Amino acid sequence: MQSYIYPAREQWDNLLARPMMQLQELESRVQPILDEVREQGDKALRRFTARFDQVEIDAIQASEAEFREAERLVSEELKNAIRLAKDNITAFHQKQWEDFQPLETMAGVRCWRKSVPISRVGLYIPGGTAPLFSSILMLGIPALIAGCETIVLCTPPSKEGKVNPAMLFTAELLGIKQVCKVGGAQAVAAMAYGTESVPKVYKIFGPGNQYVTLAKQLVSRDSAAIDMPAGPSEVAVVADDTADPYFVAADLLSQAEHGIDSQVLLVSQSEAFVQSVETALEEQVKTLPREEIARKALANSKSIVLKNEDEVVSLINQYAPEHLILAVENDEALGERILNAGSVFLGHYTPESVGDYASGTNHTLPTNGYARAYSGVSLDSFLKKITFQKLSPSGLQALGPAVELMAEAEELAAHKLAVSVRLAKLKEA
Amino acid sequence: MQSYIYPAREQWDNLLARPMMQLQELESRVQPILDEVREQGDKALRRFTARFDQVEIDAIQASEAEFREAERLVSEELKNAIRLAKDNITAFHQKQWEDFQPLETMAGVRCWRKSVPISRVGLYIPGGTAPLFSSILMLGIPALIAGCETIVLCTPPSKEGKVNPAMLFTAELLGIKQVCKVGGAQAVAAMAYGTESVPKVYKIFGPGNQYVTLAKQLVSRDSAAIDMPAGPSEVAVVADDTADPYFVAADLLSQAEHGIDSQVLLVSQSEAFVQSVETALEEQVKTLPREEIARKALANSKSIVLKNEDEVVSLINQYAPEHLILAVENDEALGERILNAGSVFLGHYTPESVGDYASGTNHTLPTNGYARAYSGVSLDSFLKKITFQKLSPSGLQALGPAVELMAEAEELAAHKLAVSVRLAKLKEA
Repeated sequence: MQSYIYPAREQWDNLLARPMMQLQELESRVQPILDEVREQGDKALRRFTARFDQVEIDAIQASEAEFREAERLVSEELKNAIRLAKDNITAFHQKQWEDFQPLETMAGVRCWRKSVPISRVGLYIPGGTAPLFSSILMLGIPALIAGCETIVLCTPPSKEGKVNPAMLFTAELLGIKQVCKVGGAQAVAAMAYGTESVPKVYKIFGPGNQYVTLAKQLVSRDSAAIDMPAGPSEVAVVADDTADPYFVAADLLSQAEHGIDSQVLLVSQSEAFVQSVETALEEQVKTLPREEIARKALANSKSIVLKNEDEVVSLINQYAPEHLILAVENDEALGERILNAGSVFLGHYTPESVGDYASGTNHTLPTNGYARAYSGVSLDSFLKKITFQKLSPSGLQALGPAVELMAEAEELAAHKLAVSVRLAKLKEA
Repeated sequence: MQSYIYPAREQWDNLLARPMMQLQELESRVQPILDEVREQGDKALRRFTARFDQVEIDAIQASEAEFREAERLVSEELKNAIRLAKDNITAFHQKQWEDFQPLETMAGVRCWRKSVPISRVGLYIPGGTAPLFSSILMLGIPALIAGCETIVLCTPPSKEGKVNPAMLFTAELLGIKQVCKVGGAQAVAAMAYGTESVPKVYKIFGPGNQYVTLAKQLVSRDSAAIDMPAGPSEVAVVADDTADPYFVAADLLSQAEHGIDSQVLLVSQSEAFVQSVETALEEQVKTLPREEIARKALANSKSIVLKNEDEVVSLINQYAPEHLILAVENDEALGERILNAGSVFLGHYTPESVGDYASGTNHTLPTNGYARAYSGVSLDSFLKKITFQKLSPSGLQALGPAVELMAEAEELAAHKLAVSVRLAKLKEA
């Protein structure tokens, strides 16, 4: 890790800068993929899958036989772990339902809002080395609770044209039967525009590489909504002398192993503690199958020693980390001061991995500083809130004159007229 | 209006199609504006304001003297109307606070979420013929309730370099003192990147023309978040024979007067009723100062007669209107069946204009079919919801083994290690 002791405030901006994503440059490669899928449907999907995933697929949706095979292949132990995670995630997201009773803002003027599911949603789950069935839980469970009618899942097939069994098991556990073996920008296009095999959806969720991210941004301009922009995953750990350097080192590595562009930040008031984390890191990184990736990510990672808690709070709020671990004695009090973060892990026995999998909170979170303005995925992400209002005749008589005045001042005569014709009729009556 | 009697389902798609926005074509004109503001700050703002608004501005922010002048110029009557609207909008948005108590998803695993204001927000208010102070209420009030620290308002100056007095009065009523006399794509850039006079913000709200809309989309790729994509304003009115054709005609006109691209739709099961609305429209449109605009919008508008209520519900849910007026006898029951709409106005005494100004609901709503996936602006739009979790040692002992198994199955060894080192230490103790 690169180490910074008491850096001056003027340096913080540079210190906390994320790598710039050069998405614009990719546009000339991604836009044609979107256009071809829009025009040619499944035919284009098969062609891109052959080119990018090096596999010829016949049926795009996973078959019943593949679901049955998956069920046989997943161990009972793992199934139970997934079921436990499902229960916790369900409990936390179920609690996010809003109960909004009508409010009389004034006599005869009744307003309320109603949560309604987005009827058609698409979940993108990346492929690559790790089979991310946990992301299926994190996106599928709130979609189910919301009551989304159509839930489509897209994920790139392996070179054998298969979907990982744990992923198929998890999808089926949630009742998601439309699992499409297509990845990349072409999958995003398929969900945004619809093809013969992939139903069109109104909102697309899920992480992905820079091609997927850009494709989501491009379709969101004129078609499907998206969950949020995405960048490399991040963790910031704030630790004091009560923390265990081995715990903290493992937490940092669990972010570093994601990819060489993972952002890892250690913040402490104790130089000695930072030193002991460095030692622990060296010991642990050697044991990892993804040692090489983790070492590269660590080389770009930073440890920062600051003078006091106020500085720590300022720096964290300026950085706005996706994941924030507060491995300190006064974790809850410090947590109260955090204004910008995706998800916060309090105390010494709450590693990020519990939230990644099974504590109940969602792991689809804003990266790249977006935590300043975005929330992570929640039940709300799968709902729209429609507002309603109903005025009684006397409500309109009370409110109408103010509306007439304001409409007139905005020079919108018909807006005024819509009130006036009603007030006139009430006067007659 | 163009009239369609019992159109076949296969025609609905065409019938309900919105005009395509060709935003891509504008990109080559908007991107350079964003770049110049990013690089040259206020200097670029002054240059673009001279070019597009035909006025040389010196101070970009409105001065205290301008606020004082505005206060003198606005009538006491209008001030009181605005204050009444403020009270209703405040009451409705205040009620949107969430009280989320920590939940033990399992023994020793405590999860909760906390609503935190987006600290810096920007409100864009279009200029043009109508001074839209109502949009200041709709965006400023939830920002205030949320507790956003920095609230910046941008609006294009008049040819005299002024901001409309009612707008300045409304801004000051809400405590918004940073009113910047700059509009268009250059205002969006100023708020996204910051200039000497315009503070940088993390999220940009508000309606605007196609340049503003595209600018918001472009900055949202790598900088500030935005409220939602925007298109021309829309209303759909569902009316039965209990409706008053004069009320309905005025409602249609209050949308039509917004602009020639306004989308206006009348849906009924009664051909005779539609005929009587046509007659009322002709009578009323003549009286409007914006007659020409309204006539052009009406020429593109459609009335559709359908066979039964099921068809009406299907068509409305397919169209997903920004505003929906249910001028029918069974308005509340019909409202229950609506799945895609921005805001719904129930019964015969609830014209859209009450929601535009003062009932309490927000008038910043999803257009262009986005109501399928987006909610209108609400308190939530100005908040992030940060999740928290804290495990006790026994909580980790209960949940940890499942996390270890799942991390292993996803081939993320350090994720597992972060749990294992903690469980090992607990075992020792």
